[in-house]
Amino acid sequence: MAPKKPSRVKARQPRGFVDRSASDLYAQDRMLATIRHVYETYGFEPVETPFFEYTDALGKFLPDSDRPNEGVFSLQDDDEEWLSLRYDLTAPLARHVAENFEDLPKPYRSYRAGYVFRNEKPGPGRFRQFMQFDADIVGAPNVSADAEMAMMMADTMEALGIARGQYVIRVNNRKVLDGILDAIGLEGDQGRRLTVLRALDKFDKFGADGVRLLLGAGRLDESGGKGDFTKGAELNGETIARVLRIFDADGLSGVRQAFGGHAGVDGGLDELSQIESFARTAGYEADRVRIDPSVVRGLEYYTGPVFEAELLFDVVNEKGQKVQFGSVGGGGRYDGLVSRFLATPVPATGFSIGVSRLQTALKNLGRLEGERRTGPVVVTVMDRDRMADYQAMATQLRAALNGPGQPVVPVEVFQGNPKQFGKQLQYADRRGAPVVVIQGGDEKAAGKVQVKDLALGKELSAGVEDNAEWREMRAGQELVDEADLVAAVRAILGRAGGAA
Amino acid sequence: MAPKKPSRVKARQPRGFVDRSASDLYAQDRMLATIRHVYETYGFEPVETPFFEYTDALGKFLPDSDRPNEGVFSLQDDDEEWLSLRYDLTAPLARHVAENFEDLPKPYRSYRAGYVFRNEKPGPGRFRQFMQFDADIVGAPNVSADAEMAMMMADTMEALGIARGQYVIRVNNRKVLDGILDAIGLEGDQGRRLTVLRALDKFDKFGADGVRLLLGAGRLDESGGKGDFTKGAELNGETIARVLRIFDADGLSGVRQAFGGHAGVDGGLDELSQIESFARTAGYEADRVRIDPSVVRGLEYYTGPVFEAELLFDVVNEKGQKVQFGSVGGGGRYDGLVSRFLATPVPATGFSIGVSRLQTALKNLGRLEGERRTGPVVVTVMDRDRMADYQAMATQLRAALNGPGQPVVPVEVFQGNPKQFGKQLQYADRRGAPVVVIQGGDEKAAGKVQVKDLALGKELSAGVEDNAEWREMRAGQELVDEADLVAAVRAILGRAGGAA
Repeated sequence: MAPKKPSRVKARQPRGFVDRSASDLYAQDRMLATIRHVYETYGFEPVETPFFEYTDALGKFLPDSDRPNEGVFSLQDDDEEWLSLRYDLTAPLARHVAENFEDLPKPYRSYRAGYVFRNEKPGPGRFRQFMQFDADIVGAPNVSADAEMAMMMADTMEALGIARGQYVIRVNNRKVLDGILDAIGLEGDQGRRLTVLRALDKFDKFGADGVRLLLGAGRLDESGGKGDFTKGAELNGETIARVLRIFDADGLSGVRQAFGGHAGVDGGLDELSQIESFARTAGYEADRVRIDPSVVRGLEYYTGPVFEAELLFDVVNEKGQKVQFGSVGGGGRYDGLVSRFLATPVPATGFSIGVSRLQTALKNLGRLEGERRTGPVVVTVMDRDRMADYQAMATQLRAALNGPGQPVVPVEVFQGNPKQFGKQLQYADRRGAPVVVIQGGDEKAAGKVQVKDLALGKELSAGVEDNAEWREMRAGQELVDEADLVAAVRAILGRAGGAA
Repeated sequence: MAPKKPSRVKARQPRGFVDRSASDLYAQDRMLATIRHVYETYGFEPVETPFFEYTDALGKFLPDSDRPNEGVFSLQDDDEEWLSLRYDLTAPLARHVAENFEDLPKPYRSYRAGYVFRNEKPGPGRFRQFMQFDADIVGAPNVSADAEMAMMMADTMEALGIARGQYVIRVNNRKVLDGILDAIGLEGDQGRRLTVLRALDKFDKFGADGVRLLLGAGRLDESGGKGDFTKGAELNGETIARVLRIFDADGLSGVRQAFGGHAGVDGGLDELSQIESFARTAGYEADRVRIDPSVVRGLEYYTGPVFEAELLFDVVNEKGQKVQFGSVGGGGRYDGLVSRFLATPVPATGFSIGVSRLQTALKNLGRLEGERRTGPVVVTVMDRDRMADYQAMATQLRAALNGPGQPVVPVEVFQGNPKQFGKQLQYADRRGAPVVVIQGGDEKAAGKVQVKDLALGKELSAGVEDNAEWREMRAGQELVDEADLVAAVRAILGRAGGAA
């Protein structure tokens, strides 16, 4: 064997990161424009923070992160300070507001879309870079603002084409859960409080029986034959039964019966009633904004109402099971986040949409069928010495076929190796070109040019088997005067249903 | 003195990073949409790569980076592999194309806009995160593709409102410079070749005299009293004079006279003539696409034609001097970049626009005057117990005033502390609200609502000095039936010139 050459660099995406295609990006663009429109009708305006923040400014609020810096990409700057890539868009907003507090109108309504980063183990459908689209009101002390956020989330779902009944905005209050934890004797016991919250958050995954184990002695995970044991919160049976009433069909009255009279719980429930009343008065019924005391949001900075946007239609998961699509975003009140930086209290509420998950959902609903984009008009190269003429032809067509405010009609010269003409036609076909322009020496001498309607050509040559290549080449082709080139191309584009 | 409280987290942006305001983002959006439109008319389609790449996949091509990893933000993954944030959009594209080579149409025309990161010392106007907007054709072996890129860059400038004569796309060829370096005896001497290229790149900054020193014995930088000495390339006087002919008024004939007959130089010049001919035939004269052998592009991956988009109008720099605005982007041919990953050669050419610099330029030209956005209709809160009614009113107005495809009319309830009514009016004024809606107990009882035209109110109350506050409060105010609320608001918006 010959000695191996020095090995090439391997072309691969880093684990947990993905490239995105044109159709994916077109669909995302339309989706973001729709969301932005809704937010703007509510008086929100854009603001953008950088990808990096000082690590101490971001704080540590990620769910399930016990170790410092877990979940975050961090590096040390040359002045020894630690920088982290943002893991959400809320912590950076809090820094921005604190830094510019005097200059901002209060309340301050803002939105932003952007990628955030999580330094987690990548897995199927689990990415380390994903997009969020947030809206926040800072300087809004009352639950009326939380109600407004929930209603805006509902409006956003409908604007995206998700029908009423296919989604619901579920609203809970961190104060209710905190009150329950106090009421069952866990005041001050941070460790067990967190264990209980995490257990409750697993209801969708493990059901009531699984949560009962996690609230009690613990649960052995037998899926995949791994046998991982999760330690439980060691609550007694009676307490577990009380706590599980948050999952009652009417969780609100379940909580009232089990914990009513506890000041913390009552205060939280009272806020939820107010939110319910705001929503109902504005015409948002329980099929859109629903109070549900079983909602647990993982992030640790929430201090009051929390909400979650759930999609209710079924999809088939990777195991072939029918499951509800589930959450595409959420948020809540974070009264302490801005005042980490300031001496004054700064109440705030907001929510975040998981753009990629939502896009997957919309695709499932058939709501992201790509708008039909016109493929390019391809000017082919018959004679490479006349490349300058072909480019001039493309320039002329491009200018004539594109006007302001009209759909784009792409026009391009074939820039690959022009030797094999068949490859140029293959390329045009591959790109979905409606028209191909051809000018060889004979045509040039006669002041003529060929325009070929690719769709018509395919139609005409269908079924012709012998000498098929030649026929396809000529089918749908038309010889026109050079002066009529633009008109001829325009006519074919008109037939193809494209703009012209 | 009392003991200090535990210090709060300081709210500050990391060095070299900035937040961006609404008007800045609106302007950027419009600019990006214009650029995208031009690229799409040339048949380019979007593709997006993630912010991270494996460090070895990015390679080391930054100008002035001698040490490994200089200029790049890198960190080690938990599997010990090194990841880097992209420093441009070309190296990641090369990886993407190599990874998906079989599935992509060739030539592959793509564009992408996004932030890139440089781990450099931040300074005034020098950021560590900035946006680029790139277009590339991969699989295009001929200089006709380079000519097309130069012409598309010219089109882009004009689409953005930069008049002919205010910009020029300067085109050179790395092969010409390489040929010159060979011709003066530096073949194989990487160190001195780089010193010469860097010296030539300083012509705008130091002029002919400065470059002469840098090509010879070296140059002492006496600005700022620092006295930094830059070692020179140690060329002799005659050679320096020959090299400097690239800066002749007609650099092309200067190079021909000084180096004509050298095969490398002649080959490069021949390609430049072809590009010139392509451009001229397509109607792009020397005021748009100009051959200029003094263009040096810093990135080390270029292998053929290189281009630079220069803005020719004067701006005043931070020292108060009038200077030409200079470069807003550039690019060139990089035939070796994709084939770092593949066994086959993959010729490619592309360019990159510096979005932030271009935005500054357009602002200077008055081309980014904000489109007039309607401020929000503000529903004020006279009676906090009736918040639900105010929200319902806002919901009604929002639905009535906003239709698909029409400019947004934002409608919001005041979500701050409603105690001081004056603060609500101040807020509305601050937000540029055209209309304020007011309903106190008396109005409610009568089935009425107040609508206040803020612009008219200001006009009417101008000059009134005594009791001004009261008068301003009532001026421009109108009492209407609840049923006529939408119509009354619409009428005021019509007067204000907003959509309705």
